[in-house]
Amino acid sequence: MTKLASVEAYAPASMGNVGIGFDIFGMAFQEPGDTVRVEYSDASGVEIVAITGDGGRLPLAPDKNTASVAVAHYLRMIDSLQGVRLWVNKGLPLASGLGSSAASAVAGVFAVNALFGEPLERKALLAACLEGEAIVSGYHADNVGPSLLGGITLITGTAISDIRHLPVPSDLHCVLVTPHVAVETAAARAVLPQNLPLDHIVRQTGQVARFVDALYRDDLAAVVSAMEADLIAEPARAHLMPHLDEARRIAKRAGALGLVISGAGPTLCALCGGRAEADATRHALDALYQESGIGATSRVTCVDREGARIIRSL
Amino acid sequence: MTKLASVEAYAPASMGNVGIGFDIFGMAFQEPGDTVRVEYSDASGVEIVAITGDGGRLPLAPDKNTASVAVAHYLRMIDSLQGVRLWVNKGLPLASGLGSSAASAVAGVFAVNALFGEPLERKALLAACLEGEAIVSGYHADNVGPSLLGGITLITGTAISDIRHLPVPSDLHCVLVTPHVAVETAAARAVLPQNLPLDHIVRQTGQVARFVDALYRDDLAAVVSAMEADLIAEPARAHLMPHLDEARRIAKRAGALGLVISGAGPTLCALCGGRAEADATRHALDALYQESGIGATSRVTCVDREGARIIRSL
Repeated sequence: MTKLASVEAYAPASMGNVGIGFDIFGMAFQEPGDTVRVEYSDASGVEIVAITGDGGRLPLAPDKNTASVAVAHYLRMIDSLQGVRLWVNKGLPLASGLGSSAASAVAGVFAVNALFGEPLERKALLAACLEGEAIVSGYHADNVGPSLLGGITLITGTAISDIRHLPVPSDLHCVLVTPHVAVETAAARAVLPQNLPLDHIVRQTGQVARFVDALYRDDLAAVVSAMEADLIAEPARAHLMPHLDEARRIAKRAGALGLVISGAGPTLCALCGGRAEADATRHALDALYQESGIGATSRVTCVDREGARIIRSL
Repeated sequence: MTKLASVEAYAPASMGNVGIGFDIFGMAFQEPGDTVRVEYSDASGVEIVAITGDGGRLPLAPDKNTASVAVAHYLRMIDSLQGVRLWVNKGLPLASGLGSSAASAVAGVFAVNALFGEPLERKALLAACLEGEAIVSGYHADNVGPSLLGGITLITGTAISDIRHLPVPSDLHCVLVTPHVAVETAAARAVLPQNLPLDHIVRQTGQVARFVDALYRDDLAAVVSAMEADLIAEPARAHLMPHLDEARRIAKRAGALGLVISGAGPTLCALCGGRAEADATRHALDALYQESGIGATSRVTCVDREGARIIRSL
């Protein structure tokens, strides 16, 4: 095998929680995603040469960026003293509930592993990705897991054996709408309830079970109905999401089956059974946020089944 | 069709909660079960002629017995003024966590519906069974559902559409051990926590999802591991179950994959991957309760996939 000089990897956006599954479910989207290019360096350590697509908001300091921290951990994992240089291109909006910090970490680690000739298999990369994510969001795999592995994932811990793929509904189309407001993950976590009454827990666990059952039966209407039944995060965070109730009502009128908050928000994800319904829903939600003066970025996408991937290597 | 004079129905024991699924999962067992015989009466209303197998502990008053209350509701559902007489034979121990009150209600309703020529389909009988169960345990389908319908069920409400069959692991054998101590359902509910901290809820929902996923993958080890991960009922009720920790340890040493409390207890259910392991586990648990001076009734059984059934009609 010829030694590579430059590798660029893509890691997809992802949605933590998936509505009903606070801190246990994740879902990868085909788009948007972050790309990281990696090349060898004569200097030791990890250097970030440039970050594009972030409007100058992200730090170049290698101990402050999730991609470089993750890559540095990867190099320790394989006992390498080789230095590398990173170019990070943010396709993902920051602090939007789409797993931006996770995607950069995953793309960086996936690229450097390919540059080194794939000494580790995909699943073994999780630990390094988690180290990167941890400097921003703590040790949690609900974005790193789906971004690395693709699909819809159940996450019951931080080991690779704690992450399982669940079936992906065949007709599912997603509309991602990111209103132009800031919701910091830390602030969104601060409003969460510290505990829940038993009757709420019974309803929550029942709908979690129904969600998994419906995925296996490919019953998209039941999947989405279960997704919307969350009693943990949405009731606590709804006030942080502008026009949430109206967005849900408008999305359903346009043909969507339902709508949930993506991760900690403010991105909303409308779930549709086909491309036409998704296009109509996107159009209706765009109009809502334009008329309200907030503005929003939107797109139609599907569940990404592949996870991180190499898009260019020289 | 010749009009029947006498019908006897069998309804199986069942386990609420199934460990991890407090108030949302139920499982029917092939044995033990209750039988109810129904015949026409010249008098109006519902009469209980005799109850056997209960040691004289159950009331004959038709408004106090779950079978007669359920049958009376059934007669109202079909607008019948016909009187009926019931003979109830308890195969199930009372207040043991095996759904005794539910099984009598289900057997009574299933028998009378057959006596009348099956004017209602099986699923339509749920409402009447719930009315019977309600006088003892409140409106809840976690025993009535599996006893009527068989299998492993997810219960998210009291309508028939809120009950779903989940896949049954192909190798699962169950050891039911009922120590000779009384645990009243009301007392067992009184010790339940009023609320749970968020980190416990995340762990509970994660294992609920893992349980359903593992059922679909027929991964019995993961099914049982998830069943045992309950943070709601077992920690609160453990002190009501004599020798619970020791029973679990002994069961696993004898080859069981795990052990949970059946419903509100005191019956314990050890989960095994084959008949030989189940027999050895039963033997070991029998010895434990014999040596401790408590004594216990035990049996090996499997999941009942059929639910209530007619065993004799004339």
